[in-house]
Amino acid sequence: MKQSLHDSVKFTGGFWLHLEEINRNRTIPMNYKQLVDTGRIKAMKLEWKEGEPDCPHHFWDSDVAKWMEAAAFSLKKTPDSTLEKQIDEIIDIIERGQTSEGYYNSYFLQIEPTRRWQDLRIKHELYCAGHLMEAAVAYMETTGRRKFLDIMCKYADYIDTVFGPEAEGKIPGYPGHEEIELALVKMYHATNNQKYLLLSKFFVDVRGTEPNYFELESQKYGYKPVWTELNYFQAHTPVRTQDEAVGHAVRAVYLYCGMADVALETDDEKLGEACKELWDNIVKKKMYITGAIGSCYHGETFSNAYDLPNEEAYAETCASIGLAFFAHRMFQLHKKGEYMDVLERAIYNGASSGISLDGTRFFYVNPLACYPDGTLANGQKHTPRPEWFTCSCCPPNIARLRASAGQYFYDYNDTTIWVNLYNDSVTDIKMQDHCITLTQTTDYPWDGKVNVNIQSARPVECGIAFRVPGWCREASIKLNGTDIDCKSSAKDGYVYIKRTWTSGDNVEITLPMPVELIHANPKVRHDCGRVALTRGPLVYCFEQQDNGADLNAVSLMPDTDFKLEYDSELLNGCVVISTEAMKIDQNSWGDELYSPKEPVTVPCKLKAVPYFCWGNRKFGEMQIWIRQ
Amino acid sequence: MKQSLHDSVKFTGGFWLHLEEINRNRTIPMNYKQLVDTGRIKAMKLEWKEGEPDCPHHFWDSDVAKWMEAAAFSLKKTPDSTLEKQIDEIIDIIERGQTSEGYYNSYFLQIEPTRRWQDLRIKHELYCAGHLMEAAVAYMETTGRRKFLDIMCKYADYIDTVFGPEAEGKIPGYPGHEEIELALVKMYHATNNQKYLLLSKFFVDVRGTEPNYFELESQKYGYKPVWTELNYFQAHTPVRTQDEAVGHAVRAVYLYCGMADVALETDDEKLGEACKELWDNIVKKKMYITGAIGSCYHGETFSNAYDLPNEEAYAETCASIGLAFFAHRMFQLHKKGEYMDVLERAIYNGASSGISLDGTRFFYVNPLACYPDGTLANGQKHTPRPEWFTCSCCPPNIARLRASAGQYFYDYNDTTIWVNLYNDSVTDIKMQDHCITLTQTTDYPWDGKVNVNIQSARPVECGIAFRVPGWCREASIKLNGTDIDCKSSAKDGYVYIKRTWTSGDNVEITLPMPVELIHANPKVRHDCGRVALTRGPLVYCFEQQDNGADLNAVSLMPDTDFKLEYDSELLNGCVVISTEAMKIDQNSWGDELYSPKEPVTVPCKLKAVPYFCWGNRKFGEMQIWIRQ
Repeated sequence: MKQSLHDSVKFTGGFWLHLEEINRNRTIPMNYKQLVDTGRIKAMKLEWKEGEPDCPHHFWDSDVAKWMEAAAFSLKKTPDSTLEKQIDEIIDIIERGQTSEGYYNSYFLQIEPTRRWQDLRIKHELYCAGHLMEAAVAYMETTGRRKFLDIMCKYADYIDTVFGPEAEGKIPGYPGHEEIELALVKMYHATNNQKYLLLSKFFVDVRGTEPNYFELESQKYGYKPVWTELNYFQAHTPVRTQDEAVGHAVRAVYLYCGMADVALETDDEKLGEACKELWDNIVKKKMYITGAIGSCYHGETFSNAYDLPNEEAYAETCASIGLAFFAHRMFQLHKKGEYMDVLERAIYNGASSGISLDGTRFFYVNPLACYPDGTLANGQKHTPRPEWFTCSCCPPNIARLRASAGQYFYDYNDTTIWVNLYNDSVTDIKMQDHCITLTQTTDYPWDGKVNVNIQSARPVECGIAFRVPGWCREASIKLNGTDIDCKSSAKDGYVYIKRTWTSGDNVEITLPMPVELIHANPKVRHDCGRVALTRGPLVYCFEQQDNGADLNAVSLMPDTDFKLEYDSELLNGCVVISTEAMKIDQNSWGDELYSPKEPVTVPCKLKAVPYFCWGNRKFGEMQIWIRQ
Repeated sequence: MKQSLHDSVKFTGGFWLHLEEINRNRTIPMNYKQLVDTGRIKAMKLEWKEGEPDCPHHFWDSDVAKWMEAAAFSLKKTPDSTLEKQIDEIIDIIERGQTSEGYYNSYFLQIEPTRRWQDLRIKHELYCAGHLMEAAVAYMETTGRRKFLDIMCKYADYIDTVFGPEAEGKIPGYPGHEEIELALVKMYHATNNQKYLLLSKFFVDVRGTEPNYFELESQKYGYKPVWTELNYFQAHTPVRTQDEAVGHAVRAVYLYCGMADVALETDDEKLGEACKELWDNIVKKKMYITGAIGSCYHGETFSNAYDLPNEEAYAETCASIGLAFFAHRMFQLHKKGEYMDVLERAIYNGASSGISLDGTRFFYVNPLACYPDGTLANGQKHTPRPEWFTCSCCPPNIARLRASAGQYFYDYNDTTIWVNLYNDSVTDIKMQDHCITLTQTTDYPWDGKVNVNIQSARPVECGIAFRVPGWCREASIKLNGTDIDCKSSAKDGYVYIKRTWTSGDNVEITLPMPVELIHANPKVRHDCGRVALTRGPLVYCFEQQDNGADLNAVSLMPDTDFKLEYDSELLNGCVVISTEAMKIDQNSWGDELYSPKEPVTVPCKLKAVPYFCWGNRKFGEMQIWIRQ
């Protein structure tokens, strides 16, 4: 089994250490408190009675499971007996509640005991199982204790007896909310039991085949489906024929993760090609500059190509997290930097905007422009970050992403180490049976200089591939003080240095980070005539707090200069971009609603902060795409 | 009783004669067919039985009533025995169905017979009654026959016994959907029975007082209200303290009409001031350039000040019609051109866009930008015009507006005639006991020259006030060939000519109509950096059919010239505006979604057509506010 990397990467400072600490000290405890206070953990004891408050909901188990996974990841880095006890108690609860067959679902065991597996389309049964499996794998990796994994193996074994080809007398169905596909591949990695890989492959393969299972299911059990469009569930056609990202965005990317996992494990080229088609469709037509996806409020879905409204963006935090998961798998399939570019975009921007800087408040929806006075077509308004949601998938999801972020920093195989992301860190990677230690020193993402020091007990001949991010126009790399010819060594977004590495080897990477004005494809009608400011991996935004109200009355001047300043007081410390701009002068306009007179513009100062920091001060206007 | 003007103005050609003919020949017959086919007229016979199709709905009577009113207006101008018979049959149906007390409502008599007057908030009972009253008044004015009016007097008398102060043992309630207030004032005008004016005043006065009737009603009858926010119904505070237009837009403007009517009839200054506050709030903060109002899809409501999204505009056809009604009453209160400016804006643009050029298809929602590939936050998409709607208030509403448009062209009192609107027409107005005939000759709205010829059997000393529209920067007026000093004769948007008028007097008005680039208040964030093209009273728009797709990739050039051309083949004949512009070149962009490269723009030709004509060809993109 390949070494898991999320615990090999030790952050020693900087951006990600801070996030890791916030996550451990604030987000994980605060999520636990919510799980307790809202009755989610109590519900798992299967003691709820009709008429009591906190009636179990069909996705509650998944909230708890994601928290358990996050907590397990966190424990690995920083032991914490209280936290460990909290997880162990839940494991005991699940053990006690698991049926003799292996089934466990706190909703169905209490609320609809006679309807198990009857509403796969809506009721998240396999989804909850998948999240519990992921948690069990993480817990085993952290503690080495198999108890939770055994419980979930028993559950997976039971599911394997229930689901499969109809010819074998099994249910030929699949989850309405994908997740178990990727979880079963993790179970396979953790146990080496091929059955789990095959079950995952079954769920992938059967999806969207004719006759459609969801329709059969509705007929058989007489349910009027809550949502009838099959493409909402990516169940409109078999997955290998899907080439457009459609339907519920989180469901979609979780499915694509499972597809990519199965493609990788089974060398399924056709499936891999479908993943590539879906990937291209997302990143070329359906992704926000923040790495957010699923632009449409209605059903939390992908919209049509280039339909990327800013103020009306849905852009669920979980969808951006899911896109990072999918990107990671696409990287594993193809070892190309373009996938890491999207992963980096998502985790620094569209996913991180979903959590407050202090780790205790969240956005479910991540608009790219916010006008609190505006009313969306569905009557929604932008509001400050709450501490929790009725449907609270995002808070524990961002917690597990952050607790396991280290896994994305490196990859390796027998001959090559890929250095994907940059942060102060020390990482041990087993290469040819001994350990190479890579120590990064950097101020990334605030500065593009990265020093990588290599230590190895013995000289090792291998390639180390350093990622040159897609946002970087001209990188320079020095090996032990001497310039490397980046162009000739470049492939697919990485500079490959193949040599016999010895202790003390030093690589100095310089990724210049000027402020860039980014334009969108002219087919994105919402962004025509506008630019977004980026610097390095970060997308910037303008907040009312810094720039006053009426942000859309502001326009950048041509050939404007940008001033950079690290402000240690602001928003936990960040590089701020300042510039001169023009603003339509409200005072000289008067109170007419419409007029032929040309509006007077006056110079103004403009200050941009990283988008992931927005909504952490007094709640007000925010805008990424500014008029030019 | 003051002479009604809608039948005194005979259109003799041009824009409004064409609309009148389309309305008579296509819209009114087609609406009738829909009323029959959908079961609305059948429902009024009170013979519907459980299990049958076309279950009567609580607002169906109003659809029929509005059609009857439109048909009655039309009959007055052009007798039509078939049409008259259709109306008479419905009157007979209502007569047969009316209870001995005087009650008639096809929904409550059949579907909820025990719940009469129990759900005033939602069930449109008084609203339907109001529309039937308006129809009865129109029918009496056209035919001189009192039968329908008598039926409705009996109904109104009955309502008067039911509603009133609690101290008198009556229901202290008021309609959830306003309408009866203005209808009762029409009944008062038609009958001179002051009781109807007092009942209208009661409904106006009691609205929003404490304790809130809608809340009492819900408690009393145990209904869980469908919509709980009292400001949705303008019932959050007494009407004299209302200063912001809120809630359901059609409800709101119908109420404001009733308020203005009562203010006018009772010289209620405080009520008149509230009307003025509400008016100013609408036209300075909540009205589209098209004269559309109610920007918010959710609940068909007014949004906050300056929240006027274009693509996501709701802008119901009925709301724009209602704004015209309100404008007419504000004019009657204040005799100022600014009110006629809004009326003209609404009836030429935001209301007229709601009906196809051939009079047979409709828009309920009137966006100011349309991208058929876009999905709104509520999952709605822009679609071609249907022939009818489940909730079909708009089609008969536009029919009655058009059948009675003549009434807005003039107003008069003992000393002055106001000439408000311009179209080929002949109009007789009784002034000081004899008749003045005003004959207008013009190509308005395509051309700003208007000739007004005066005929009078005897010389008459009076003022004639000619409206100089708000869109006109410098009007010139000749009286019998000699220039009038417009400035010194101008007051409140009119040029007043006071003299002894004799037959053959001739006034030539010139209202120059250059293309204007209109800007919006910078607080309207959706329009910043954009302009709308207008010419005379018409707002123009760009359609995909003329300009290709990706309209938002187009921007006007500074100091661009506009070419005007009357195209008799296009859209029933209209003045088209052509200009040169720039468009972001998709071909040179490639397929990246985001890039730092400056997009290449290329020259393009641009063609604008009047907004009211949009959506009459192949359905595609449309945009009013173009980037500058």
